[in-house]
Amino acid sequence: MNDFFKLISPQEFIALFADFTPLDTETLPLHQARGRVLAEQMISREALPPFSRSTMDGFAVRAADTFGCSESETALLSVVGEIAMGTSGQDLRLKPGQAVRIWTGGELPQKADAVVMVEYTQPFDEDTVAVFRPVAPGENVTQAGEDYQAGAVILDQGRILRPQDLGVLSGLGMTTVPVHRRPRVAILSTGDELVPADQTPPPGKIRDINSTTMAAMVEEAGGRAIPLGICGDDFERILSICTEALQEADMLLLSGGSSVGNRDFTQRVFAAIPESRMLVHGVSVRPGKPTILARQGNKALFGLPGHVASALVIFYCFVRPLMRRYSGLGATLGLPMIQAITDQPIPSAIGREEYVRVRLVPQEGSPLPQAVPVYGKSGLLSPLVRADGLLPIGRDVEGLDRGVTCPVLLFP
Amino acid sequence: MNDFFKLISPQEFIALFADFTPLDTETLPLHQARGRVLAEQMISREALPPFSRSTMDGFAVRAADTFGCSESETALLSVVGEIAMGTSGQDLRLKPGQAVRIWTGGELPQKADAVVMVEYTQPFDEDTVAVFRPVAPGENVTQAGEDYQAGAVILDQGRILRPQDLGVLSGLGMTTVPVHRRPRVAILSTGDELVPADQTPPPGKIRDINSTTMAAMVEEAGGRAIPLGICGDDFERILSICTEALQEADMLLLSGGSSVGNRDFTQRVFAAIPESRMLVHGVSVRPGKPTILARQGNKALFGLPGHVASALVIFYCFVRPLMRRYSGLGATLGLPMIQAITDQPIPSAIGREEYVRVRLVPQEGSPLPQAVPVYGKSGLLSPLVRADGLLPIGRDVEGLDRGVTCPVLLFP
Repeated sequence: MNDFFKLISPQEFIALFADFTPLDTETLPLHQARGRVLAEQMISREALPPFSRSTMDGFAVRAADTFGCSESETALLSVVGEIAMGTSGQDLRLKPGQAVRIWTGGELPQKADAVVMVEYTQPFDEDTVAVFRPVAPGENVTQAGEDYQAGAVILDQGRILRPQDLGVLSGLGMTTVPVHRRPRVAILSTGDELVPADQTPPPGKIRDINSTTMAAMVEEAGGRAIPLGICGDDFERILSICTEALQEADMLLLSGGSSVGNRDFTQRVFAAIPESRMLVHGVSVRPGKPTILARQGNKALFGLPGHVASALVIFYCFVRPLMRRYSGLGATLGLPMIQAITDQPIPSAIGREEYVRVRLVPQEGSPLPQAVPVYGKSGLLSPLVRADGLLPIGRDVEGLDRGVTCPVLLFP
Repeated sequence: MNDFFKLISPQEFIALFADFTPLDTETLPLHQARGRVLAEQMISREALPPFSRSTMDGFAVRAADTFGCSESETALLSVVGEIAMGTSGQDLRLKPGQAVRIWTGGELPQKADAVVMVEYTQPFDEDTVAVFRPVAPGENVTQAGEDYQAGAVILDQGRILRPQDLGVLSGLGMTTVPVHRRPRVAILSTGDELVPADQTPPPGKIRDINSTTMAAMVEEAGGRAIPLGICGDDFERILSICTEALQEADMLLLSGGSSVGNRDFTQRVFAAIPESRMLVHGVSVRPGKPTILARQGNKALFGLPGHVASALVIFYCFVRPLMRRYSGLGATLGLPMIQAITDQPIPSAIGREEYVRVRLVPQEGSPLPQAVPVYGKSGLLSPLVRADGLLPIGRDVEGLDRGVTCPVLLFP
């Protein structure tokens, strides 16, 4: 039983995450790696492209042979062959005055250093082509290794893998890639008043909302949700479910009522979990103050407020940053942020960081949308459904005036 | 064989998508529906919450009984029971002067219209509580139906489902949801010069890059990639692979070389596909001009430029918007766009829309980052790996000056 209730600041909360370490790595085929975080620096083992290639359909030439040519004074070159796609151009060797038919992507023959586009040539006779525009050395050619030299750093550790990044690895024959494992996040809703969403609640009971909401937020943040279902307010049962879930999970999200009794209850459960240590007994954020954090080794145990708006704010402010830390990224929000203009004064109390749910309304003639607060009790869902994001108001700020430019964190 | 090469504008290209219809719908359990597009308007069949609930731990009262009370003159109420969590408060009925112990989320008893927080009460004797702060009717209570009334519109058709949206459906017992099917996108890389990424290319050949890149872009855009692998420049084989793939796929992405010969080849393949109709023979976009679009019924056949940067631009400008259209959204880019400042003059030719790859560099003392062009041949991957997004320059604009505010489409 802990009556002592010390709030920490959001900055102190986030600072705790430095003591958690990124999860171990796994090796994935490229088609499963999009959006995952690279666990090692990737170095090219060979050159890309592996040979000098034409970027055009035309004739591979020695550029010097075309110098000074024009429409009125064409350069006549003897065509000594064609480089069919996928065959080696290096089997051929250009002598001065010679040209070879080549296609986009084809390998240049030996001694060729440029390609004349077919549009700037004319057939002269069966074995001769007339070139009427000169090319500089290197023109219309991608040099061997121009994209990446052997030994070059391709991608840095900690990078979120995008389609083009996977394309490079593919081009270099690196068909698997080491990435950090996705955090496994166990989710438990507690409360004697809860029934599963597929049941009709008897009088006094309601359907579980947090399990569905939290699982979707976990998946959006790149984690794997492990749904533990619902559990009544039974200390021993909750303790045993949590202790067992932590065998597999990297993180536990326990949501209960937002009442004082529930908070104490969750603290007692976390304190009873083997080798656990309490870290946070509340945070100076609104909504979301009665948040609890404990740890068991590198595993994090969150006691989330039961009110859905509070739980959502705490998820985006703290759970998601820790999931990012687990995944090998910085412990930052990682949410898109845009600028908007307040459409009305928005009050806020000094001493806590406030997250106001806002709708964004495009404004005629302004590049910035209006931020319109969506007020409502933190137990209600409809304000969250209507809102586009959260407007943070710092703890030393006593609200915002109308017409002020402010940042808005967009819901993902 | 089509020598006639009529470019259409990007706007005309996008306008063609109005003739494609969204895909049919499927019904999914909530835990699979995040990020999917709602296919029908959702109407609440019941009230949420189903009953009036306390938002605090405290005492359910008739508010009038507390009017005028203060620290010095407390209101004494007789405590006639407790509403345990998950039990029906309506089994009790408050007479004037009575109060009932209640917890956060508990159902109010009959005739109670407010809750006094426990912090504003003191035990007086075993059956009596002293209230020293008055409450107004409705205070600390969420009314039945305050979130949603029965018959209310919860979510509109065409909405991308977010965690809180799924939470509402869960709370209302709607455990499945109708969404548009994900587009199935078949991907074929063609060219005699290609080998699969897991092979070492012999002289003159290179590894396939587009299959990996395109599949990842398709998945990012919410589609299901159907990888068809690579195929040499064999008309009959490509035709048969494409024709068969279109039995299952909603869309086909064929990438070949960017050469004139290849473009004609792809056009001939598309023209030979049963019931196909050519729509686009080229678009005034750079890079990406030699793009082809045909249709077979409601299925789209894209001939993408072989150069990876061109293919990527065309994917984000046209393929992704059509995938969004298929998914029940608008045929818009759907990419996050931010404002940035050019760090140098950026040239562009009149008559075509240009997409310049740019890096974003944060600037000390400015809310907007600098947009720094990453130049490089469109066949190279490294500029795409280094870039954060695309800076569009309209077709009637002759480049941008240094220090100009410009939009940047962020790579997803």
